[in-house]
Amino acid sequence: MAKMKTSFTNALDAAASETEDLLGTLLSTQPASGEIERPQRLLDAMRYSSLGGGKRLRPFLVVESAALFDVPRQRALMAGAALECVHCYSLVHDDLPSMDNDDLRRGRPTLHRAYDDATAILAGDSLLTFAFDILSRDETHPDPAVRIALVRELARGSGLGGMAGGQMLDLAAEGRFGAMPAGEETFIITMQAMKTGALLHFACIAGGILGGASAEQLRALSAYGRAVGTAFQIADDLLDVEGDAATVGKATGKDAAVGKATLVSVLGIEAARKRIAGVVADAEAALAPDGERGAILRETARFIAAREK
Amino acid sequence: MAKMKTSFTNALDAAASETEDLLGTLLSTQPASGEIERPQRLLDAMRYSSLGGGKRLRPFLVVESAALFDVPRQRALMAGAALECVHCYSLVHDDLPSMDNDDLRRGRPTLHRAYDDATAILAGDSLLTFAFDILSRDETHPDPAVRIALVRELARGSGLGGMAGGQMLDLAAEGRFGAMPAGEETFIITMQAMKTGALLHFACIAGGILGGASAEQLRALSAYGRAVGTAFQIADDLLDVEGDAATVGKATGKDAAVGKATLVSVLGIEAARKRIAGVVADAEAALAPDGERGAILRETARFIAAREK
Repeated sequence: MAKMKTSFTNALDAAASETEDLLGTLLSTQPASGEIERPQRLLDAMRYSSLGGGKRLRPFLVVESAALFDVPRQRALMAGAALECVHCYSLVHDDLPSMDNDDLRRGRPTLHRAYDDATAILAGDSLLTFAFDILSRDETHPDPAVRIALVRELARGSGLGGMAGGQMLDLAAEGRFGAMPAGEETFIITMQAMKTGALLHFACIAGGILGGASAEQLRALSAYGRAVGTAFQIADDLLDVEGDAATVGKATGKDAAVGKATLVSVLGIEAARKRIAGVVADAEAALAPDGERGAILRETARFIAAREK
Repeated sequence: MAKMKTSFTNALDAAASETEDLLGTLLSTQPASGEIERPQRLLDAMRYSSLGGGKRLRPFLVVESAALFDVPRQRALMAGAALECVHCYSLVHDDLPSMDNDDLRRGRPTLHRAYDDATAILAGDSLLTFAFDILSRDETHPDPAVRIALVRELARGSGLGGMAGGQMLDLAAEGRFGAMPAGEETFIITMQAMKTGALLHFACIAGGILGGASAEQLRALSAYGRAVGTAFQIADDLLDVEGDAATVGKATGKDAAVGKATLVSVLGIEAARKRIAGVVADAEAALAPDGERGAILRETARFIAAREK
């Protein structure tokens, strides 16, 4: 039975559709100024892994956090598209045989299965690079100081001290490089804050950066973003235990199969559910001062915690 | 017999040493603002592949092109360090088994041989990301408009329409994805301009961007950069045919072994040597208006064409 469309799901779908259109335009065959040419195979691989699917949750968070400050929507969509390129690159590289070795992503063959490993490595590299190209453009924001602030925050959220570092810790959590580090719960919380949380956090502060938010407003968005990141990852771990592959759109049961420690394996399912409820309350509290304007972001936090895929 | 140190080699060595020191400092264990923490294994892998070797030719070109405009040296070194991170990431990824499958780099095991494939993928990703972190910092240039211009040019020189795209074409030149594309010589020239030329070109214009060069001055640096890029790649192909692994510091004879088309295989050695002489003359001509100040960059073009490793 089809669910009723709510204003929330309408807003989510609208941002997803606009993000899809924008990425499709940005990833056209036409080289941008300063590019020599766009090799078709690489462009096709980048399009394969960035178009035609995904909830576009990160761009949605950029759009909605930007809306708090009345930022023109196109600017938020540009920053969201840049962020989505980073997210999609990370999926492509994480799926590689030497990383998580996944064959299925969003119900389709992963990029390296549809193409080959070398093309997948290059397409990931190129999507990451393209994110910074997008942020450098006038259309993202006319003020270079705003654009360079976005570059800095995205680089720090994605790299060594953020997402890529988190993936490194995630591989360590499988015991690949020796025994699991001591202090399991703390380790997992740090790993998840880096691997998944840092980009979601960027999504939430990006709107504030675009909108010239005050330091206090940025702190509130930052607190919201950290809470949403935690909720997202616990929900992901629960889906890996409880979901089925057809609904989730990728293989499930993988964490247990490789002996990967997660908050769910450490705390148990019930305690993990309680933990989610707590961080959703934190997220809602952070945006309480925004009153009615913050309603959609508060609903987003609940949606992320309860999602089924 | 040790060669006499000339003022040119002294200048090259000085920039290399300063770049090494700066990268070592930037890649310390201390997280930067906005980073959560720096996982030791990933940091070690990034340091392994970016410190302790290399001519640092690209940072040198940034430093020397910046010197034409009296840019404070530390700013040029920052931009050069960012560029070197992109260069080092590209070597790490290109060396991977599914790409060029190299075991030796600068006389040491390649990163994936010293660590593992997953760590090498993540270290490459993190070095690429770190380049944009470096460019976003005030120390690179106090004016955000200058920093964002560097971000844009580096992203376009490194990505789909530049270096990564060139690596894609290079894999195609091995016949991996079917027959070699028609128009072999034109194809190779485009491939090399993208794979190697685009980053060298960035190195040369970066000094002008940092120094507020006029459009005419940027055009001259751009012409110089394109010529130097071509000279570099032909010299590289010649070394692969004529060099020995001990001097070059990596495996040689690889192009022929995998049936890769290069300008040397298409034109022959003698014609390739003539081609180099022509582009060196182009590079020198582009900087002729700079008189004595351009002397070191003109010497750099000759050095690149004649290098033995």
